[in-house]
Amino acid sequence: MISVDEALRAVLRVAEQRKPTPVALALPDALGLVLAEDIRAPDPLPPYRASIKDGYAVVASDGPGEYPVITESRAGDDGLDVVVTPGTVAYVTTGGPIPDGADAVVQVEDTEEVTGVLDGLKRVRILAGVTKGRDIRNVGCDIEKDAVVLKSGELIGCPEVGLLATVGVTKVKVYPRPTIAVLSTGDELVEPSIQSLSRGQIRDSNRGMLLAAAIQQQCKIIDLGIAKDEEDRLNEVLDVAVNSNIDILITSGGVSMGDKDFVKPCLGKRGIIHFEKVLMRPGKPLTFAEISAQVKDSERSKTILAFGLPGNPVSCIIGFNIFVIPAIRQLSGWSNPQLQRVHARLTQPIRTDPHRPEFHRAIIRWELDDGSGWPGFVAKSTGQQTSSRLLSMKSANALLELPASGQILDAGTAVRAIVISDISSFPANKLVGEPAS
Amino acid sequence: MISVDEALRAVLRVAEQRKPTPVALALPDALGLVLAEDIRAPDPLPPYRASIKDGYAVVASDGPGEYPVITESRAGDDGLDVVVTPGTVAYVTTGGPIPDGADAVVQVEDTEEVTGVLDGLKRVRILAGVTKGRDIRNVGCDIEKDAVVLKSGELIGCPEVGLLATVGVTKVKVYPRPTIAVLSTGDELVEPSIQSLSRGQIRDSNRGMLLAAAIQQQCKIIDLGIAKDEEDRLNEVLDVAVNSNIDILITSGGVSMGDKDFVKPCLGKRGIIHFEKVLMRPGKPLTFAEISAQVKDSERSKTILAFGLPGNPVSCIIGFNIFVIPAIRQLSGWSNPQLQRVHARLTQPIRTDPHRPEFHRAIIRWELDDGSGWPGFVAKSTGQQTSSRLLSMKSANALLELPASGQILDAGTAVRAIVISDISSFPANKLVGEPAS
Ligand SMILES: [Mg+2]
Ligand SMILES: [Mg+2]
Repeated sequence: MISVDEALRAVLRVAEQRKPTPVALALPDALGLVLAEDIRAPDPLPPYRASIKDGYAVVASDGPGEYPVITESRAGDDGLDVVVTPGTVAYVTTGGPIPDGADAVVQVEDTEEVTGVLDGLKRVRILAGVTKGRDIRNVGCDIEKDAVVLKSGELIGCPEVGLLATVGVTKVKVYPRPTIAVLSTGDELVEPSIQSLSRGQIRDSNRGMLLAAAIQQQCKIIDLGIAKDEEDRLNEVLDVAVNSNIDILITSGGVSMGDKDFVKPCLGKRGIIHFEKVLMRPGKPLTFAEISAQVKDSERSKTILAFGLPGNPVSCIIGFNIFVIPAIRQLSGWSNPQLQRVHARLTQPIRTDPHRPEFHRAIIRWELDDGSGWPGFVAKSTGQQTSSRLLSMKSANALLELPASGQILDAGTAVRAIVISDISSFPANKLVGEPAS
Repeated sequence: MISVDEALRAVLRVAEQRKPTPVALALPDALGLVLAEDIRAPDPLPPYRASIKDGYAVVASDGPGEYPVITESRAGDDGLDVVVTPGTVAYVTTGGPIPDGADAVVQVEDTEEVTGVLDGLKRVRILAGVTKGRDIRNVGCDIEKDAVVLKSGELIGCPEVGLLATVGVTKVKVYPRPTIAVLSTGDELVEPSIQSLSRGQIRDSNRGMLLAAAIQQQCKIIDLGIAKDEEDRLNEVLDVAVNSNIDILITSGGVSMGDKDFVKPCLGKRGIIHFEKVLMRPGKPLTFAEISAQVKDSERSKTILAFGLPGNPVSCIIGFNIFVIPAIRQLSGWSNPQLQRVHARLTQPIRTDPHRPEFHRAIIRWELDDGSGWPGFVAKSTGQQTSSRLLSMKSANALLELPASGQILDAGTAVRAIVISDISSFPANKLVGEPAS
């Protein structure tokens, strides 16, 4: 049976062949996407010598004393054509332009108002001497003209949106996230809205869960509904799916050894099955195929990545995390599609499976002492790990990668953990967030 | 000057007085929100005895041998009213119902087809003995009837969407995210779309950045544009804002000591200013006020949290992270609104500020050896930390909390770090994501 690493390499190899095509998006639609072009600054920042403080632009060599305020230079063309000559000062505000001639700023806290005007000019008493250049941002000190402020391949987060605005860019080339279609299969499945179950029925949990997972990955989604365990019906739905301009097809169920498990043969007839079993727990019957589809209104055909996830809900969402998310990342232009791994120490002993490496669901949290005497992550199991028990995924923010040794790992053992949710936004964690005080 | 901790306590105290009102949302709109009700399972899962394998439901005590297949029980009413008596078996598939009478399942791998039929029935050769209960999930083994599967206060992620579907819940009571209005102030500001800057002008980077940050926090947003540094104009915009049923008002700029910095007096006239300076770097002039507004079409008034963020873009986005995000979390029903903190070791020496605790922008990544000989986070500074230099926020995923000692922290020093972006999705990180291989 293929290992998880080999299987992932096969997935990424197929994904790699499909070079993502950049699209131009207006901000903030590009938020969270990877940039597909370098961005240069058309002008320096600041574009003019700017004051760091509210106060007075002075000639530094003048020193303390009483001076006439020859202009007020706050923004725009304030103070244009006015030159601060020795013996004069100009009022300036934070971020405002420094008039020509001035070479330092005295902050307002180091000045004193003088009542009355002289020769039609307000006057101010400068109380402190300053050195040349003090509290002035020179032209281009934050961003030089023509500097590359963002590089192709970088992710657009909030500061990056600010940087783009700064350099006058309101539309950027980015790699769009893939479109994902999700299908549930199984005669036992009914819609979640069904209140009263008949014998042999369960509600379809996988489709909503997978669609939510695709939404969290910023993907466009297509809900293909539930298909009965009939080969013709499955083929009909797959026909619709592959003609919907999708990048990824996800099915759940129908990949076991039952006589009505038609997903593998149906995918096989449409392309190449790269693997149909993976040495992992849970999720063993996971199938991955590369199928080809006509591009709408075009002669070209494109490759669709098809994941036949197992029907057990835990196997299903773990398969999504381990294989589909890296594929999404690759198709979205990420330079490194791998999942984030950390280490965490077990808070309790865990027996490992003797045959298959296990993705053990856990809640990790940061502790001042992780058991080693140093700060670190500790990992608490979510309990019973049966693949049908979706409660074992509840609140889980990590998958512990446990080796197939059949041994008991003692409490305190450090294990590798894949971070599967945003630990910067984990509401239940009391311990980690405590402020210093 | 008030400390960051005191200031944050003041913000959360005001936010706490505003109990969030739950709303009923259909899935997947509730994704990422906090549940405002307990969710019970109306029926057990599985609702029937279900097979864990594809194979044959048997009477365990029968043992190996050749048996007639009296029914095929896959889903729905398959095998209803059929009883597996000793000496008979039934074909079953993964997840399908176990007919009455059977007490174990023999997986298909441990059976052999027998050609031909006898008395109109297919026959199968059972090759392995099984113990009673083998490969059968009993009724309610994953979820007991009436069990609370999700509790009020829990965050709805993907597995939780699956659990809700499982128990037939398609609409849930959740705490909505607050609505945030964002205003930029400053005579020097022009729209990001302006290509050619006149003297004294810069493009408005803060508004787009703050709106993006609010979007990332799943908030509804109102873009209030740019207000000139005129008291009347500012009041007009604030009138519109407070009558727009918002929860949080964010302004940037206009909080320094300039003669046209009107944000503090304008907020002061509308409510209570809790603080107007915080001992932090960057972000010192940060102002927080509680202002009251009429609720639309109602006699009630409600409290708006108003943040007057400094105009320097770095101060602005750091103020958002340190104060606005915890406020959003509190208003969104989080039990713990505090930011996530970890520890990280410096990859280079950093000189601390002698007067104000600093939020030093850094990129943290997980290393097998963080310098201590153990795995841990290491932190690389983003370089020059001037508050006008938004490039210092580029790609930053952590704010290092450096004490105001004026000392140099050596490389290898462990410091506290606030995680400000989703480290599970950090595309640039080559080292952390490497698979085991
Ligand atoms: Mg099935
Ligand atoms: Mg201003």
